[in-house]
Amino acid sequence: MAESNALPLVVLAEHFAKLPGIGMKSAQRLAYFVMSMSDSEVKAFADAIVTAHKTVHECSICCNLTDKELCPICENPGRDGSVICVVESPKDVTAFERTKEYKGVYHVLHGLISPIDNVMPDSLRIKQLLARIQNGGVEEVIMATNPTVEGEATAMYISRLLKPLGVRVTRLAFGLPVGAVLEYADEVTLYKALENRNEI
Amino acid sequence: MAESNALPLVVLAEHFAKLPGIGMKSAQRLAYFVMSMSDSEVKAFADAIVTAHKTVHECSICCNLTDKELCPICENPGRDGSVICVVESPKDVTAFERTKEYKGVYHVLHGLISPIDNVMPDSLRIKQLLARIQNGGVEEVIMATNPTVEGEATAMYISRLLKPLGVRVTRLAFGLPVGAVLEYADEVTLYKALENRNEI
Repeated sequence: MAESNALPLVVLAEHFAKLPGIGMKSAQRLAYFVMSMSDSEVKAFADAIVTAHKTVHECSICCNLTDKELCPICENPGRDGSVICVVESPKDVTAFERTKEYKGVYHVLHGLISPIDNVMPDSLRIKQLLARIQNGGVEEVIMATNPTVEGEATAMYISRLLKPLGVRVTRLAFGLPVGAVLEYADEVTLYKALENRNEI
Repeated sequence: MAESNALPLVVLAEHFAKLPGIGMKSAQRLAYFVMSMSDSEVKAFADAIVTAHKTVHECSICCNLTDKELCPICENPGRDGSVICVVESPKDVTAFERTKEYKGVYHVLHGLISPIDNVMPDSLRIKQLLARIQNGGVEEVIMATNPTVEGEATAMYISRLLKPLGVRVTRLAFGLPVGAVLEYADEVTLYKALENRNEI
């Protein structure tokens, strides 16, 4: 794009290229696409970016993103406040809500401990989680971070902080995904499935 | 994202999802990413979208995108105005400029004839091309559209319009790409390479 004839297009493409998963070639294509949009579409798009960034912030209880003081889940009296599901990001809340089975509340960490990426416990919403539990009424904390090195480390770290507070700490079950084919399962998953086997 | 807790985030994700090559999942990820940007980055991004759309328009000679009256290529007295390379889109100009070999000028069609997509000759910049040639001084027109059905049809259509004007009309050479392996070349490319063989 350095060879492009229109500087504002280059600037726009560079902005697109900063977004995750968008390389310089895609960014250039997106910039050209913006040229083909109508005036009103362009204005609405730019406004949506500014508005979302300005009005969306963290829920003062669970740290999920919301444009209100509290997110709809924390505000809902029908949710069971005694069970907190701890997740890495707001996307994970969306995933659990899709199951339509979980009736407890959430706590969003906004990241996982990863010293290699310079993400230390202090930059996560762990203090807020401890404060919620110290306020009382919480019986179980479900550690629902991803089954990755960082996810496991974060789950371990938080569970050690929580145990002395007398709260039950659980971890998501790991095993074969529904619909999986044994033959293609990786050995760690298969071992977990064997280890966590249940009576039928 | 329908289950999300923040409407402005849903709106923003829907805008991202309208961009080419971005599905709803990626759009959601991009919307979350915008949340992590600083105030100034967000403002600069939104401004870049509006500014590019407002200031970038077609060069009054070659129809390439530019933020000036003329694009830098048409304005450059060092370029050979007697040779016009006709391309589908501004991206193709960038590709040719990257070769650093071509010293002529361009004409950007902004599309290819494709009745199935309702793109007829009238919606391309063909009239502008004819006017340039009628103004005189043009000796050769290189049809540099893609070697696809639409690209070939467009090249044929335009060459028929140009022939009566007494201008030389040429087409890009087709053959094996440099570095290709014969074994994996498709039969049409191989046939073209055979047909257009040169003395060594």
